[in-house]
Amino acid sequence: MNVTGIHHVAFTENGTEVTGALQRLFGLNVAHTEPAEGFTERMLPAGPCYLQALQPTGDGVVQRSVQRRGTGLHHIALQVDDVAAALTELAAKGAQLVDPVPRPGGMGTLIGFVHPRSVGGVLIELVQP
Amino acid sequence: MNVTGIHHVAFTENGTEVTGALQRLFGLNVAHTEPAEGFTERMLPAGPCYLQALQPTGDGVVQRSVQRRGTGLHHIALQVDDVAAALTELAAKGAQLVDPVPRPGGMGTLIGFVHPRSVGGVLIELVQP
Repeated sequence: MNVTGIHHVAFTENGTEVTGALQRLFGLNVAHTEPAEGFTERMLPAGPCYLQALQPTGDGVVQRSVQRRGTGLHHIALQVDDVAAALTELAAKGAQLVDPVPRPGGMGTLIGFVHPRSVGGVLIELVQP
Repeated sequence: MNVTGIHHVAFTENGTEVTGALQRLFGLNVAHTEPAEGFTERMLPAGPCYLQALQPTGDGVVQRSVQRRGTGLHHIALQVDDVAAALTELAAKGAQLVDPVPRPGGMGTLIGFVHPRSVGGVLIELVQP
């Protein structure tokens, strides 16, 4: 597969304590807000990449992550041209996939998560814009 | 300050378990390896950004981080044009700085860390290439 960049880096927060600091201290802004199942996603552009804030709003993967590991950095999203082909390649290489086939992500993207067990404990998302 | 992008995202690892998976599964490569005080730093390009692997080699900030919080995602490095001016601006805004003045980072950069206490628990580094 051809990784063309870091699409975003995601962090969890209980409220908007990180997002607020990124705005106030570093001059970043929230360009996009999107509700998802059990969380709200906020995208803050940083040049060609984004910082992604994940705030739990109910039961779901974000709330479970915060309960288990606390808030903080959550995953790295790598940009690829073809997420379906990338997931097929990963499966052929024996990687454990959270999403064996692409699913819709925020901002009209196609995404797929790789299980951290296959990447030394780091959660990697693939994103096709 | 003007944040122009994500310079790198850093993670800690005990050996090279994450770096190896990034190479084998995602086709990334280690473009630069640099020894630092108590750790080895490896830079894996992803388009215009880098993933940064931090492996402890002795006493120091990386080993302490691994002992306290385990391995995994460590910090986000935002790229700025002038890290000295950015640190001055942050201090004026009341942010707590790990590095009140810039210091040399890897690959000939100038860097400064902001204390996570000022950013909702997330560790942010500023990098001037």
